[in-house]
Amino acid sequence: MSSKWLNEVVWDELGLVPAIAQDANSGEVLMFAWMNREALEKTLATGEAVYWSRSRRKLWHKGEESGHTQKVLEIRADCDRDVILLKVEQTGGIACHTGRRSCFFHRLENGGWQETEPVLKDPKEIYK
Amino acid sequence: MSSKWLNEVVWDELGLVPAIAQDANSGEVLMFAWMNREALEKTLATGEAVYWSRSRRKLWHKGEESGHTQKVLEIRADCDRDVILLKVEQTGGIACHTGRRSCFFHRLENGGWQETEPVLKDPKEIYK
Repeated sequence: MSSKWLNEVVWDELGLVPAIAQDANSGEVLMFAWMNREALEKTLATGEAVYWSRSRRKLWHKGEESGHTQKVLEIRADCDRDVILLKVEQTGGIACHTGRRSCFFHRLENGGWQETEPVLKDPKEIYK
Repeated sequence: MSSKWLNEVVWDELGLVPAIAQDANSGEVLMFAWMNREALEKTLATGEAVYWSRSRRKLWHKGEESGHTQKVLEIRADCDRDVILLKVEQTGGIACHTGRRSCFFHRLENGGWQETEPVLKDPKEIYK
């Protein structure tokens, strides 16, 4: 397949773009990560979210350890084509490594970050 | 007010964090931008989204030109506290400079980026 669409993505100086994963049904923002060209290409090819781990400096097939893969139903880009939005079905209903549904569980309230959202599964059980 | 919560945000090497704006009612992801410490502080203080424009290298009170401000109903941070999620009410129902509701109007389809989402207002009318 032509890679014209990949060339049309505006990669940053490190060859990356920010990527937002959103639950396709509930609209909940699940997580934020980065992608390089290969990650985005593999995401389309496999139908599962593949990111670039900046800390580990390697491709990261989301769920490869936890089993919490993300089935990608739609890939979007923003007006400048320098940010990617994935609409996903979250396997296991858990996107966060803390065992919560979404990574965005800190809510600013009364001048501090309050933890919200229940832990659905003990991380010790997720990463055995 | 104590700035402990600001110190708990994990700013990147440029003093920035990614920020996602989501429609508080529909759950639609409207846009993606960056914030520095002052932007986030002002967002809380004013109740309207303030970002850091990397291209113009200055604070950007969203809507200052277009009138399409964002009333911030909730401020969230992710598990690592290095990404911010704003739940907003989008004034005028238009977040994108192209006159669309959301910036994420490119959908990957048939091997190319297809434009979706109607243009609600001509940008020439927005930026006079």
